[in-house]
Amino acid sequence: MTLVTLPGQEWIDAVGAVPGLELAVWELDGVPERAEEVRVVVPPYVGGGARIPALRHTPGVDLVQLLTAGYEDVQSALPEGVRLANAAGVHDASTAELALALTLASLRDFPEFFAAQREGRWLPTTIHPALADRRVLVLGYGSIGRAIAARLLPFEVQVTAVASRARTGDALVPSVHGVEELPDLLPRHDVVIVVVPLSERTAQLVDEDFLAAMPDGGLLVNVARGGVVDTAALVRHTASGRLRAALDVTDPEPLPEDHPLWGAPGVLITPHVGGASTAFMPRAARLLREQLGAYAAGRPLRNLV
Amino acid sequence: MTLVTLPGQEWIDAVGAVPGLELAVWELDGVPERAEEVRVVVPPYVGGGARIPALRHTPGVDLVQLLTAGYEDVQSALPEGVRLANAAGVHDASTAELALALTLASLRDFPEFFAAQREGRWLPTTIHPALADRRVLVLGYGSIGRAIAARLLPFEVQVTAVASRARTGDALVPSVHGVEELPDLLPRHDVVIVVVPLSERTAQLVDEDFLAAMPDGGLLVNVARGGVVDTAALVRHTASGRLRAALDVTDPEPLPEDHPLWGAPGVLITPHVGGASTAFMPRAARLLREQLGAYAAGRPLRNLV
Repeated sequence: MTLVTLPGQEWIDAVGAVPGLELAVWELDGVPERAEEVRVVVPPYVGGGARIPALRHTPGVDLVQLLTAGYEDVQSALPEGVRLANAAGVHDASTAELALALTLASLRDFPEFFAAQREGRWLPTTIHPALADRRVLVLGYGSIGRAIAARLLPFEVQVTAVASRARTGDALVPSVHGVEELPDLLPRHDVVIVVVPLSERTAQLVDEDFLAAMPDGGLLVNVARGGVVDTAALVRHTASGRLRAALDVTDPEPLPEDHPLWGAPGVLITPHVGGASTAFMPRAARLLREQLGAYAAGRPLRNLV
Repeated sequence: MTLVTLPGQEWIDAVGAVPGLELAVWELDGVPERAEEVRVVVPPYVGGGARIPALRHTPGVDLVQLLTAGYEDVQSALPEGVRLANAAGVHDASTAELALALTLASLRDFPEFFAAQREGRWLPTTIHPALADRRVLVLGYGSIGRAIAARLLPFEVQVTAVASRARTGDALVPSVHGVEELPDLLPRHDVVIVVVPLSERTAQLVDEDFLAAMPDGGLLVNVARGGVVDTAALVRHTASGRLRAALDVTDPEPLPEDHPLWGAPGVLITPHVGGASTAFMPRAARLLREQLGAYAAGRPLRNLV
């Protein structure tokens, strides 16, 4: 039997039996039992990257399967010859639904209603922007971008997908625009949802020029990383009331208590909870089940990085 | 030319020219010009019902086209022989998206985040229920119920439709269950979204037995009418923390300042804003355009009541 370690009994329960594999608990917090026999390691979801040096106890490891999409901190510490797979995709459903939730809560002004509720005040009816009929630009069209587009379309909206390079579309959008088209596209969209990964090319992509190109009253939704947005420019465009923003991520993070974004009009902030939902574990367990099944059967692995 | 009155210049602009018809402004607030020639009257959206007696000035009227779905207050005051059409459908998109917004904001605990935002506090990460994987029961499966189901499905949920009578399904759900199946269905659903019209049969439909049949932690979303729910029973089940609720409508309405629903844990209230969005006017104008075109051409009318 090939020995695989998972970071807790709950993961063994969630994955279930995999023919040909023996599953054991190891949190990379010391020397595991039968260390020489371990072939596959799944580090803990939180803090797993820092514990990678513990792999010196398991010289027979052939594959590290992460529970996160990010892997930069793990890669550099990995012993030579060990393959690494990430968990891209397991946060798609959770993050995409938070993007929709933020968009809807901002357009329909939920913060105002919830504040009134705390005072027992029934506000008089005023007309709010509906998501229906809005022109929505999804910036970043990988698996989360597609999950967002799929959820947006039944809302009777116009969805425009933008990625690093223009390409033909899919079942959801007729075409994917290239990032160089943003200056032309931004003025024609009411809502921009940002889901690009943070990289050298996307750092501060949403800068002064980007925000200035958005129409008055436009809404910026960020469920990517805070560093994709120039925070100072966003403060300027929201403090004036010209743009609105709904942010699950900020730069810096956590946002300091006295930061002007907290109180800017039309700005709504959740504390980086895109992936922090019950959707994670079943999807991560499904990925592990498929991946370990492939490993045991000698079939090609997914998500190798 | 057949003379048609609309309740404001903005409606004439939104509808545009209709071949064979002359459009004029009348708010039912006195005697219109060329009163004898008026054949079709569109009363104002707000307060139109109370002004129906003004039709005594326009004895040639053949059709009253409302901008609301409700028509009970108009019907009794209508002169004999005048046909009446409502505007069923024009609020579908707006109300359906509010139902999704309430569901998502409640599950992901937006009131807690927005309250923390007002104090500049970045809350530590905790796991919230995702909409993904939830079993959602849509109670009331007319056009708004279908609009809700269409928006729910891409969220990776299980949708169960319930209507007054069981029938075969549609492109969205394999079957529609009858209301008599609720005792069996409720314990197996995490979220119940209520969209039935208020009638003798649906008044207090969501009563003590209904709520008691929902599982612990279940979420009741009401975008129908407050009177569909037994408010005292809902207060009991939410005050204890057993159930959650997201309500756009309440009984009574407006909810008095000292009402226990305002402060019940896990209860989220918006002040009957389901239809109060920018989605209304384009959809109402489209209905008027189609209906007036049919009237001018002698084709069958829609939404006659």
